[in-house]
Amino acid sequence: MPELSYGQYSLVFNMLSFAVASMFGAFAFFVMSQKLIGAKYRASMVVSSLVVLIAGYHYWRIMGSWEAAYTLVDGNYVSSGKPFNDAYRYVDWLLTVPLLLVELILVLGLGKGKTGPMLTKLVIAAVLMIALGYPGEISTDTGTRHLWGTLSSIPFVYILFVLWTQLGEATANSTDKVKTLFANTRWVLLMTWGFYPIAYLIGTFGGAESASAAVGVQVAYSIADVTAKALYGVMIFAIAYEKSSADGSLPTT
Amino acid sequence: MPELSYGQYSLVFNMLSFAVASMFGAFAFFVMSQKLIGAKYRASMVVSSLVVLIAGYHYWRIMGSWEAAYTLVDGNYVSSGKPFNDAYRYVDWLLTVPLLLVELILVLGLGKGKTGPMLTKLVIAAVLMIALGYPGEISTDTGTRHLWGTLSSIPFVYILFVLWTQLGEATANSTDKVKTLFANTRWVLLMTWGFYPIAYLIGTFGGAESASAAVGVQVAYSIADVTAKALYGVMIFAIAYEKSSADGSLPTT
Repeated sequence: MPELSYGQYSLVFNMLSFAVASMFGAFAFFVMSQKLIGAKYRASMVVSSLVVLIAGYHYWRIMGSWEAAYTLVDGNYVSSGKPFNDAYRYVDWLLTVPLLLVELILVLGLGKGKTGPMLTKLVIAAVLMIALGYPGEISTDTGTRHLWGTLSSIPFVYILFVLWTQLGEATANSTDKVKTLFANTRWVLLMTWGFYPIAYLIGTFGGAESASAAVGVQVAYSIADVTAKALYGVMIFAIAYEKSSADGSLPTT
Repeated sequence: MPELSYGQYSLVFNMLSFAVASMFGAFAFFVMSQKLIGAKYRASMVVSSLVVLIAGYHYWRIMGSWEAAYTLVDGNYVSSGKPFNDAYRYVDWLLTVPLLLVELILVLGLGKGKTGPMLTKLVIAAVLMIALGYPGEISTDTGTRHLWGTLSSIPFVYILFVLWTQLGEATANSTDKVKTLFANTRWVLLMTWGFYPIAYLIGTFGGAESASAAVGVQVAYSIADVTAKALYGVMIFAIAYEKSSADGSLPTT
Protein backbone atom coordinates (compact mmCIF):
# COMPACT_ATOMS: atom_id res chain seq x y z
CA MET A 1 0.00 0.00 0.00
CA PRO A 2 1.36 3.45 -0.92
CA GLU A 3 1.96 6.08 1.80
CA LEU A 4 -0.97 8.51 2.10
CA SER A 5 -1.38 11.99 3.53
CA TYR A 6 -3.91 12.51 6.34
CA GLY A 7 -6.33 14.06 3.83
CA GLN A 8 -6.00 11.21 1.30
CA TYR A 9 -6.54 8.51 3.92
CA SER A 10 -9.54 10.36 5.41
CA LEU A 11 -11.14 10.97 2.03
CA VAL A 12 -11.26 7.22 1.34
CA PHE A 13 -12.31 6.39 4.91
CA ASN A 14 -15.19 8.89 4.84
CA MET A 15 -16.30 7.81 1.36
CA LEU A 16 -16.46 4.21 2.60
CA SER A 17 -18.47 5.30 5.63
CA PHE A 18 -20.76 7.31 3.35
CA ALA A 19 -21.31 4.13 1.32
CA VAL A 20 -22.12 2.09 4.47
CA ALA A 21 -24.66 4.69 5.60
CA SER A 22 -26.19 4.95 2.12
CA MET A 23 -26.49 1.19 1.65
CA PHE A 24 -28.06 0.47 5.04
CA GLY A 25 -30.30 3.52 4.73
CA ALA A 26 -31.37 2.29 1.28
CA PHE A 27 -31.99 -1.19 2.71
CA ALA A 28 -34.43 0.20 5.26
CA PHE A 29 -36.10 2.23 2.54
CA PHE A 30 -36.51 -0.66 0.08
CA VAL A 31 -37.95 -2.89 2.80
CA MET A 32 -40.52 -0.28 3.86
CA SER A 33 -41.20 0.96 0.32
CA GLN A 34 -42.92 -2.34 -0.44
CA LYS A 35 -46.00 -1.01 1.37
CA LEU A 36 -46.06 2.16 -0.70
CA ILE A 37 -46.51 0.50 -4.12
CA GLY A 38 -48.80 -2.01 -5.82
CA ALA A 39 -48.40 -5.70 -4.91
CA LYS A 40 -47.20 -6.77 -8.35
CA TYR A 41 -44.24 -4.32 -8.29
CA ARG A 42 -43.11 -5.42 -4.84
CA ALA A 43 -40.68 -8.09 -6.09
CA SER A 44 -38.34 -5.51 -7.64
CA MET A 45 -38.09 -3.72 -4.25
CA VAL A 46 -37.37 -7.06 -2.55
CA VAL A 47 -34.42 -7.57 -4.91
CA SER A 48 -33.27 -3.94 -4.49
CA SER A 49 -33.17 -4.42 -0.75
CA LEU A 50 -30.97 -7.53 -1.09
CA VAL A 51 -28.51 -5.67 -3.32
CA VAL A 52 -27.94 -2.85 -0.83
CA LEU A 53 -27.92 -5.12 2.23
CA ILE A 54 -25.13 -7.23 0.70
CA ALA A 55 -23.28 -4.10 -0.45
CA GLY A 56 -23.65 -2.52 3.02
CA TYR A 57 -22.08 -5.60 4.59
CA HIS A 58 -19.16 -5.48 2.16
CA TYR A 59 -18.58 -1.74 2.65
CA TRP A 60 -18.54 -2.30 6.42
CA ARG A 61 -15.82 -4.92 5.87
CA ILE A 62 -13.91 -2.74 3.38
CA MET A 63 -13.88 0.10 5.97
CA GLY A 64 -12.40 -2.26 8.53
CA SER A 65 -9.82 -3.55 6.08
CA TRP A 66 -8.83 0.00 5.09
CA GLU A 67 -8.46 0.99 8.76
CA ALA A 68 -6.36 -2.09 9.53
CA ALA A 69 -4.10 -1.63 6.48
CA TYR A 70 -2.78 1.75 7.68
CA THR A 71 -1.05 3.23 10.72
CA LEU A 72 -0.66 6.94 11.47
CA VAL A 73 3.06 7.80 11.71
CA ASP A 74 4.15 11.47 12.04
CA GLY A 75 0.94 12.79 10.48
CA ASN A 76 1.02 10.44 7.47
CA TYR A 77 -0.62 7.09 6.94
CA VAL A 78 1.81 4.27 6.16
CA SER A 79 1.17 0.60 5.49
CA SER A 80 0.63 -1.32 8.73
CA GLY A 81 1.86 -4.51 7.05
CA LYS A 82 -1.69 -5.92 6.91
CA PRO A 83 -2.88 -6.16 3.30
CA PHE A 84 -5.99 -4.31 2.13
CA ASN A 85 -8.56 -6.81 0.86
CA ASP A 86 -9.57 -5.93 -2.71
CA ALA A 87 -11.58 -9.12 -3.02
CA TYR A 88 -14.55 -7.82 -0.99
CA ARG A 89 -15.61 -5.67 -3.94
CA TYR A 90 -15.44 -8.57 -6.38
CA VAL A 91 -17.31 -10.95 -4.09
CA ASP A 92 -19.88 -8.20 -3.66
CA TRP A 93 -20.29 -7.75 -7.41
CA LEU A 94 -20.58 -11.50 -7.99
CA LEU A 95 -23.67 -11.41 -5.77
CA THR A 96 -25.11 -7.98 -6.47
CA VAL A 97 -24.67 -7.55 -10.23
CA PRO A 98 -26.85 -10.59 -11.10
CA LEU A 99 -29.40 -9.28 -8.57
CA LEU A 100 -29.32 -5.82 -10.18
CA LEU A 101 -30.02 -7.48 -13.52
CA VAL A 102 -32.97 -9.39 -12.03
CA GLU A 103 -34.30 -6.12 -10.56
CA LEU A 104 -34.13 -4.38 -13.89
CA ILE A 105 -35.65 -7.23 -15.89
CA LEU A 106 -38.48 -7.51 -13.34
CA VAL A 107 -39.47 -3.88 -13.70
CA LEU A 108 -39.34 -4.14 -17.49
CA GLY A 109 -42.13 -6.71 -17.36
CA LEU A 110 -40.99 -8.56 -20.49
CA GLY A 111 -43.53 -11.35 -20.22
CA LYS A 112 -43.18 -15.03 -19.41
CA GLY A 113 -41.22 -16.42 -22.33
CA LYS A 114 -38.57 -13.71 -22.61
CA THR A 115 -37.52 -13.08 -18.99
CA GLY A 116 -35.74 -16.40 -18.30
CA PRO A 117 -33.54 -16.67 -21.42
CA MET A 118 -32.58 -12.98 -21.30
CA LEU A 119 -31.62 -13.21 -17.63
CA THR A 120 -29.50 -16.33 -18.23
CA LYS A 121 -27.50 -14.60 -20.97
CA LEU A 122 -27.00 -11.44 -18.92
CA VAL A 123 -25.96 -13.25 -15.74
CA ILE A 124 -23.38 -15.35 -17.61
CA ALA A 125 -21.99 -12.16 -19.16
CA ALA A 126 -21.90 -10.50 -15.71
CA VAL A 127 -19.97 -13.36 -14.12
CA LEU A 128 -17.48 -13.29 -17.02
CA MET A 129 -17.13 -9.51 -16.69
CA ILE A 130 -16.32 -9.71 -12.97
CA ALA A 131 -14.06 -12.78 -13.19
CA LEU A 132 -12.03 -11.24 -16.03
CA GLY A 133 -11.65 -7.93 -14.20
CA TYR A 134 -10.25 -9.38 -10.98
CA PRO A 135 -6.77 -10.55 -12.18
CA GLY A 136 -6.16 -7.00 -13.41
CA GLU A 137 -7.44 -5.38 -10.23
CA ILE A 138 -5.00 -7.20 -7.95
CA SER A 139 -2.06 -6.71 -10.32
CA THR A 140 0.39 -3.86 -9.76
CA ASP A 141 1.57 -4.11 -13.38
CA THR A 142 -0.10 -1.56 -15.67
CA GLY A 143 0.07 -3.83 -18.74
CA THR A 144 -1.62 -6.73 -16.93
CA ARG A 145 -4.29 -4.35 -15.63
CA HIS A 146 -5.00 -3.07 -19.13
CA LEU A 147 -5.13 -6.57 -20.64
CA TRP A 148 -7.69 -7.99 -18.18
CA GLY A 149 -9.57 -4.71 -18.12
CA THR A 150 -10.01 -4.89 -21.89
CA LEU A 151 -11.17 -8.52 -21.79
CA SER A 152 -13.64 -7.65 -19.02
CA SER A 153 -15.02 -4.81 -21.17
CA ILE A 154 -16.36 -7.21 -23.81
CA PRO A 155 -19.14 -8.75 -21.66
CA PHE A 156 -19.60 -5.31 -20.03
CA VAL A 157 -20.41 -3.64 -23.35
CA TYR A 158 -22.64 -6.58 -24.30
CA ILE A 159 -24.72 -6.20 -21.09
CA LEU A 160 -25.10 -2.46 -21.53
CA PHE A 161 -26.09 -2.88 -25.17
CA VAL A 162 -28.80 -5.43 -24.34
CA LEU A 163 -30.18 -3.36 -21.43
CA TRP A 164 -30.14 -0.12 -23.42
CA THR A 165 -32.12 -1.73 -26.24
CA GLN A 166 -34.59 -3.41 -23.89
CA LEU A 167 -35.19 -0.23 -21.89
CA GLY A 168 -35.90 1.56 -25.14
CA GLU A 169 -38.49 -1.03 -26.17
CA ALA A 170 -40.13 -1.01 -22.72
CA THR A 171 -40.92 2.69 -22.97
CA ALA A 172 -42.96 2.11 -26.15
CA ASN A 173 -46.25 1.19 -24.45
CA SER A 174 -46.22 3.23 -21.24
CA THR A 175 -47.78 6.43 -19.93
CA ASP A 176 -45.83 9.66 -20.47
CA LYS A 177 -44.59 9.85 -16.89
CA VAL A 178 -43.39 6.23 -16.90
CA LYS A 179 -41.80 6.86 -20.30
CA THR A 180 -39.75 9.75 -18.87
CA LEU A 181 -38.75 7.64 -15.88
CA PHE A 182 -37.59 4.79 -18.13
CA ALA A 183 -35.62 7.23 -20.30
CA ASN A 184 -33.93 8.65 -17.17
CA THR A 185 -33.23 5.16 -15.85
CA ARG A 186 -31.55 4.26 -19.10
CA TRP A 187 -29.20 7.25 -18.79
CA VAL A 188 -28.53 6.60 -15.12
CA LEU A 189 -27.71 3.00 -16.01
CA LEU A 190 -25.27 4.08 -18.69
CA MET A 191 -23.64 6.73 -16.53
CA THR A 192 -23.33 4.70 -13.35
CA TRP A 193 -22.11 1.55 -15.06
CA GLY A 194 -19.80 3.67 -17.19
CA PHE A 195 -18.16 4.81 -13.95
CA TYR A 196 -16.72 1.35 -13.23
CA PRO A 197 -14.28 1.15 -16.16
CA ILE A 198 -13.21 4.72 -15.33
CA ALA A 199 -12.52 3.72 -11.73
CA TYR A 200 -10.62 0.68 -12.98
CA LEU A 201 -8.53 2.87 -15.29
CA ILE A 202 -7.74 5.33 -12.47
CA GLY A 203 -5.83 2.44 -10.89
CA THR A 204 -3.29 2.60 -13.69
CA PHE A 205 -2.71 6.38 -13.56
CA GLY A 206 0.74 7.37 -12.32
CA GLY A 207 1.67 3.74 -11.82
CA ALA A 208 -0.17 1.21 -9.70
CA GLU A 209 1.87 2.14 -6.60
CA SER A 210 0.87 5.81 -6.69
CA ALA A 211 -1.08 7.25 -3.76
CA SER A 212 -3.51 9.22 -5.90
CA ALA A 213 -4.33 6.12 -8.00
CA ALA A 214 -5.07 4.10 -4.84
CA VAL A 215 -7.29 6.87 -3.46
CA GLY A 216 -8.97 7.55 -6.80
CA VAL A 217 -9.95 3.89 -7.30
CA GLN A 218 -11.60 3.62 -3.86
CA VAL A 219 -13.47 6.92 -4.18
CA ALA A 220 -14.65 6.22 -7.72
CA TYR A 221 -15.85 2.67 -6.93
CA SER A 222 -17.71 3.95 -3.87
CA ILE A 223 -19.52 6.62 -5.88
CA ALA A 224 -20.29 4.10 -8.64
CA ASP A 225 -21.68 1.55 -6.16
CA VAL A 226 -23.85 4.03 -4.27
CA THR A 227 -25.27 5.34 -7.53
CA ALA A 228 -25.71 1.98 -9.29
CA LYS A 229 -27.26 0.29 -6.24
CA ALA A 230 -28.94 2.76 -3.88
CA LEU A 231 -29.84 5.61 -6.22
CA TYR A 232 -30.74 3.19 -8.99
CA GLY A 233 -33.11 1.34 -6.67
CA VAL A 234 -34.79 4.64 -5.82
CA MET A 235 -35.37 5.22 -9.54
CA ILE A 236 -36.85 1.73 -9.87
CA PHE A 237 -39.08 2.60 -6.91
CA ALA A 238 -40.21 5.77 -8.70
CA ILE A 239 -41.13 3.72 -11.78
CA ALA A 240 -43.01 1.18 -9.66
CA TYR A 241 -44.83 3.99 -7.82
CA GLU A 242 -45.92 5.71 -11.03
CA LYS A 243 -47.03 2.40 -12.54
CA SER A 244 -49.05 1.61 -9.39
CA SER A 245 -50.56 5.05 -9.49
CA ALA A 246 -51.46 4.67 -13.20
CA ASP A 247 -53.11 1.23 -12.79
CA GLY A 248 -54.82 2.12 -9.48
CA SER A 249 -52.95 -0.43 -7.37
CA LEU A 250 -51.55 2.00 -4.75
CA PRO A 251 -52.20 0.57 -1.27
CA THR A 252 -55.11 2.29 0.51
CA THR A 253 -54.87 0.57 3.88
CA MET B 1 -7.38 17.60 20.46
CA PRO B 2 -7.29 19.73 23.62
CA GLU B 3 -6.77 18.10 27.03
CA LEU B 4 -10.06 17.47 28.83
CA SER B 5 -11.02 16.89 32.45
CA TYR B 6 -12.76 13.64 33.34
CA GLY B 7 -16.07 15.52 33.54
CA GLN B 8 -15.66 17.22 30.17
CA TYR B 9 -14.75 14.00 28.37
CA SER B 10 -17.63 12.11 29.98
CA LEU B 11 -20.17 14.82 29.22
CA VAL B 12 -19.45 14.50 25.49
CA PHE B 13 -19.28 10.71 25.63
CA ASN B 14 -22.63 10.43 27.39
CA MET B 15 -24.28 12.99 25.12
CA LEU B 16 -23.15 10.95 22.12
CA SER B 17 -24.55 7.80 23.70
CA PHE B 18 -27.81 9.64 24.43
CA ALA B 19 -27.96 10.53 20.72
CA VAL B 20 -27.37 6.89 19.66
CA ALA B 21 -30.16 5.69 21.96
CA SER B 22 -32.53 8.44 20.80
CA MET B 23 -31.89 7.83 17.12
CA PHE B 24 -32.31 4.04 17.21
CA GLY B 25 -35.31 4.38 19.52
CA ALA B 26 -36.84 6.86 17.09
CA PHE B 27 -36.07 4.49 14.20
CA ALA B 28 -38.08 1.71 15.82
CA PHE B 29 -40.94 4.14 16.49
CA PHE B 30 -41.07 5.54 12.96
CA VAL B 31 -41.07 2.03 11.47
CA MET B 32 -43.94 0.89 13.67
CA SER B 33 -45.81 4.20 13.49
CA GLN B 34 -46.58 3.50 9.84
CA LYS B 35 -49.33 1.16 10.98
CA LEU B 36 -50.91 3.80 13.20
CA ILE B 37 -51.70 6.33 10.47
CA GLY B 38 -53.46 6.50 7.10
CA ALA B 39 -51.77 4.91 4.07
CA LYS B 40 -51.18 8.18 2.25
CA TYR B 41 -49.19 9.66 5.16
CA ARG B 42 -46.97 6.59 5.50
CA ALA B 43 -44.26 7.88 3.17
CA SER B 44 -43.29 10.70 5.53
CA MET B 45 -42.74 8.17 8.36
CA VAL B 46 -40.64 6.00 6.01
CA VAL B 47 -38.41 9.01 5.34
CA SER B 48 -38.29 9.93 9.06
CA SER B 49 -37.10 6.45 9.88
CA LEU B 50 -34.27 6.65 7.31
CA VAL B 51 -33.10 9.97 8.78
CA VAL B 52 -32.73 8.59 12.30
CA LEU B 53 -31.28 5.24 11.17
CA ILE B 54 -28.51 7.03 9.24
CA ALA B 55 -27.96 9.45 12.13
CA GLY B 56 -27.85 6.56 14.61
CA TYR B 57 -25.14 4.87 12.54
CA HIS B 58 -23.09 8.08 12.48
CA TYR B 59 -23.47 8.72 16.22
CA TRP B 60 -22.33 5.17 16.87
CA ARG B 61 -19.22 5.88 14.75
CA ILE B 62 -18.65 9.31 16.36
CA MET B 63 -18.73 7.67 19.80
CA GLY B 64 -16.07 5.20 18.70
CA SER B 65 -13.95 7.97 17.21
CA TRP B 66 -14.25 10.06 20.40
CA GLU B 67 -13.21 7.08 22.54
CA ALA B 68 -10.22 6.31 20.28
CA ALA B 69 -9.06 9.94 20.20
CA TYR B 70 -8.44 10.12 23.98
CA THR B 71 -6.42 8.27 26.62
CA LEU B 72 -6.87 8.64 30.38
CA VAL B 73 -3.61 9.86 31.94
CA ASP B 74 -3.51 10.82 35.67
CA GLY B 75 -7.23 11.48 35.81
CA ASN B 76 -7.32 13.69 32.69
CA TYR B 77 -8.08 12.83 29.10
CA VAL B 78 -5.24 13.62 26.69
CA SER B 79 -5.01 13.09 22.95
CA SER B 80 -4.19 9.48 22.08
CA GLY B 81 -2.60 10.59 18.80
CA LYS B 82 -5.54 9.24 16.79
CA PRO B 83 -7.50 12.09 15.20
CA PHE B 84 -11.19 12.63 16.02
CA ASN B 85 -13.20 12.34 12.81
CA ASP B 86 -15.27 15.51 12.35
CA ALA B 87 -16.36 14.37 8.89
CA TYR B 88 -18.97 11.87 10.18
CA ARG B 89 -21.30 14.75 11.03
CA TYR B 90 -20.94 16.31 7.61
CA VAL B 91 -21.43 13.02 5.76
CA ASP B 92 -24.48 12.48 7.96
CA TRP B 93 -25.93 15.88 7.08
CA LEU B 94 -25.28 15.36 3.37
CA LEU B 95 -27.60 12.36 3.57
CA THR B 96 -30.09 13.37 6.25
CA VAL B 97 -30.77 17.06 5.50
CA PRO B 98 -32.12 16.33 1.99
CA LEU B 99 -34.22 13.54 3.53
CA LEU B 100 -35.55 15.90 6.21
CA LEU B 101 -36.57 18.28 3.44
CA VAL B 102 -38.35 15.45 1.59
CA GLU B 103 -40.14 14.51 4.83
CA LEU B 104 -41.34 18.05 5.35
CA ILE B 105 -42.42 18.63 1.77
CA LEU B 106 -44.31 15.30 1.78
CA VAL B 107 -46.36 16.24 4.81
CA LEU B 108 -47.13 19.67 3.37
CA GLY B 109 -48.92 17.96 0.46
CA LEU B 110 -48.14 20.71 -2.04
CA GLY B 111 -49.62 18.93 -5.03
CA LYS B 112 -48.03 17.29 -8.07
CA GLY B 113 -46.51 20.23 -9.95
CA LYS B 114 -44.96 22.07 -7.00
CA THR B 115 -43.25 19.31 -5.01
CA GLY B 116 -40.47 18.43 -7.49
CA PRO B 117 -39.17 21.93 -8.33
CA MET B 118 -39.32 23.10 -4.69
CA LEU B 119 -37.44 20.02 -3.50
CA THR B 120 -34.74 20.47 -6.16
CA LYS B 121 -34.09 24.07 -5.07
CA LEU B 122 -34.01 23.17 -1.38
CA VAL B 123 -31.72 20.15 -1.82
CA ILE B 124 -29.22 22.17 -3.87
CA ALA B 125 -29.23 24.85 -1.16
CA ALA B 126 -28.75 22.17 1.53
CA VAL B 127 -25.75 20.62 -0.23
CA LEU B 128 -24.20 24.10 -0.64
CA MET B 129 -24.83 24.89 3.02
CA ILE B 130 -23.09 21.69 4.20
CA ALA B 131 -20.20 21.86 1.71
CA LEU B 132 -19.48 25.49 2.61
CA GLY B 133 -19.58 24.77 6.36
CA TYR B 134 -17.05 21.94 6.31
CA PRO B 135 -13.82 23.87 5.50
CA GLY B 136 -14.55 26.09 8.50
CA GLU B 137 -15.39 23.16 10.79
CA ILE B 138 -12.05 21.42 10.29
CA SER B 139 -10.07 24.66 10.56
CA THR B 140 -8.46 25.66 13.86
CA ASP B 141 -8.26 29.29 12.72
CA THR B 142 -11.09 31.49 14.03
CA GLY B 143 -11.07 33.77 10.97
CA THR B 144 -11.36 30.84 8.54
CA ARG B 145 -14.17 29.39 10.65
CA HIS B 146 -16.07 32.68 10.58
CA LEU B 147 -15.60 33.12 6.82
CA TRP B 148 -16.95 29.68 5.81
CA GLY B 149 -19.61 29.84 8.49
CA THR B 150 -20.90 33.09 7.04
CA LEU B 151 -20.91 31.72 3.48
CA SER B 152 -22.75 28.62 4.68
CA SER B 153 -25.38 30.84 6.36
CA ILE B 154 -26.60 32.21 3.03
CA PRO B 155 -28.20 28.95 1.74
CA PHE B 156 -29.18 28.18 5.36
CA VAL B 157 -31.26 31.37 5.67
CA TYR B 158 -32.73 30.74 2.21
CA ILE B 159 -33.93 27.24 3.20
CA LEU B 160 -35.46 28.46 6.44
CA PHE B 161 -37.18 31.33 4.68
CA VAL B 162 -38.75 29.03 2.05
CA LEU B 163 -39.87 26.46 4.63
CA TRP B 164 -41.26 29.12 6.98
CA THR B 165 -43.35 30.61 4.18
CA GLN B 166 -44.54 27.23 2.90
CA LEU B 167 -45.48 26.03 6.37
CA GLY B 168 -47.48 29.22 6.81
CA GLU B 169 -49.40 28.63 3.58
CA ALA B 170 -50.04 24.96 4.38
CA THR B 171 -51.91 25.87 7.55
CA ALA B 172 -54.42 27.96 5.57
CA ASN B 173 -56.74 25.09 4.56
CA SER B 174 -56.48 22.71 7.54
CA THR B 175 -58.54 21.85 10.59
CA ASP B 176 -57.81 23.81 13.77
CA LYS B 177 -55.85 20.99 15.37
CA VAL B 178 -53.66 20.47 12.27
CA LYS B 179 -53.23 24.26 12.07
CA THR B 180 -51.81 24.34 15.61
CA LEU B 181 -49.52 21.40 14.83
CA PHE B 182 -48.18 23.10 11.72
CA ALA B 183 -47.61 26.33 13.64
CA ASN B 184 -45.68 24.39 16.31
CA THR B 185 -43.69 22.52 13.67
CA ARG B 186 -42.71 25.84 12.15
CA TRP B 187 -41.34 27.06 15.48
CA VAL B 188 -39.58 23.77 16.22
CA LEU B 189 -38.00 23.93 12.77
CA LEU B 190 -36.73 27.46 13.37
CA MET B 191 -35.45 26.68 16.85
CA THR B 192 -33.76 23.36 16.08
CA TRP B 193 -32.16 24.52 12.84
CA GLY B 194 -31.15 27.75 14.54
CA PHE B 195 -29.15 25.66 17.00
CA TYR B 196 -26.66 24.56 14.34
CA PRO B 197 -25.06 27.96 13.65
CA ILE B 198 -24.85 28.46 17.43
CA ALA B 199 -23.01 25.13 17.80
CA TYR B 200 -20.74 26.14 14.94
CA LEU B 201 -19.99 29.48 16.63
CA ILE B 202 -19.22 27.78 19.96
CA GLY B 203 -16.25 26.22 18.16
CA THR B 204 -14.66 29.65 17.90
CA PHE B 205 -15.15 30.67 21.55
CA GLY B 206 -11.92 30.91 23.53
CA GLY B 207 -9.90 29.85 20.51
CA ALA B 208 -10.36 26.66 18.53
CA GLU B 209 -7.93 24.76 20.76
CA SER B 210 -9.90 25.43 23.92
CA ALA B 211 -11.35 22.48 25.82
CA SER B 212 -14.69 24.14 26.52
CA ALA B 213 -15.13 25.01 22.81
CA ALA B 214 -14.46 21.37 21.80
CA VAL B 215 -16.92 20.08 24.42
CA GLY B 216 -19.51 22.77 23.66
CA VAL B 217 -19.54 21.98 19.92
CA GLN B 218 -20.13 18.26 20.46
CA VAL B 219 -22.86 18.76 23.07
CA ALA B 220 -24.65 21.44 21.04
CA TYR B 221 -24.58 19.44 17.78
CA SER B 222 -25.89 16.36 19.59
CA ILE B 223 -28.82 18.29 21.08
CA ALA B 224 -29.54 19.92 17.71
CA ASP B 225 -29.49 16.57 15.87
CA VAL B 226 -31.73 14.76 18.36
CA THR B 227 -34.26 17.60 18.22
CA ALA B 228 -34.16 18.22 14.47
CA LYS B 229 -34.34 14.50 13.58
CA ALA B 230 -36.03 12.45 16.31
CA LEU B 231 -38.28 15.03 17.97
CA TYR B 232 -39.11 16.62 14.64
CA GLY B 233 -40.20 13.25 13.24
CA VAL B 234 -42.51 12.80 16.23
CA MET B 235 -44.15 16.14 15.40
CA ILE B 236 -44.57 15.07 11.77
CA PHE B 237 -46.17 11.87 13.09
CA ALA B 238 -48.59 13.96 15.15
CA ILE B 239 -49.59 15.94 12.05
CA ALA B 240 -50.04 12.74 10.02
CA TYR B 241 -52.12 11.21 12.82
CA GLU B 242 -54.43 14.23 13.09
CA LYS B 243 -54.81 14.39 9.32
CA SER B 244 -55.67 10.65 9.19
CA SER B 245 -58.16 11.15 11.97
CA ALA B 246 -59.73 14.11 10.19
CA ASP B 247 -60.12 12.35 6.82
CA GLY B 248 -61.14 9.00 8.35
CA SER B 249 -58.15 7.05 7.09
CA LEU B 250 -56.93 5.69 10.46
CA PRO B 251 -56.24 1.93 10.12
CA THR B 252 -58.98 -0.21 11.56
CA THR B 253 -57.46 -3.67 11.14
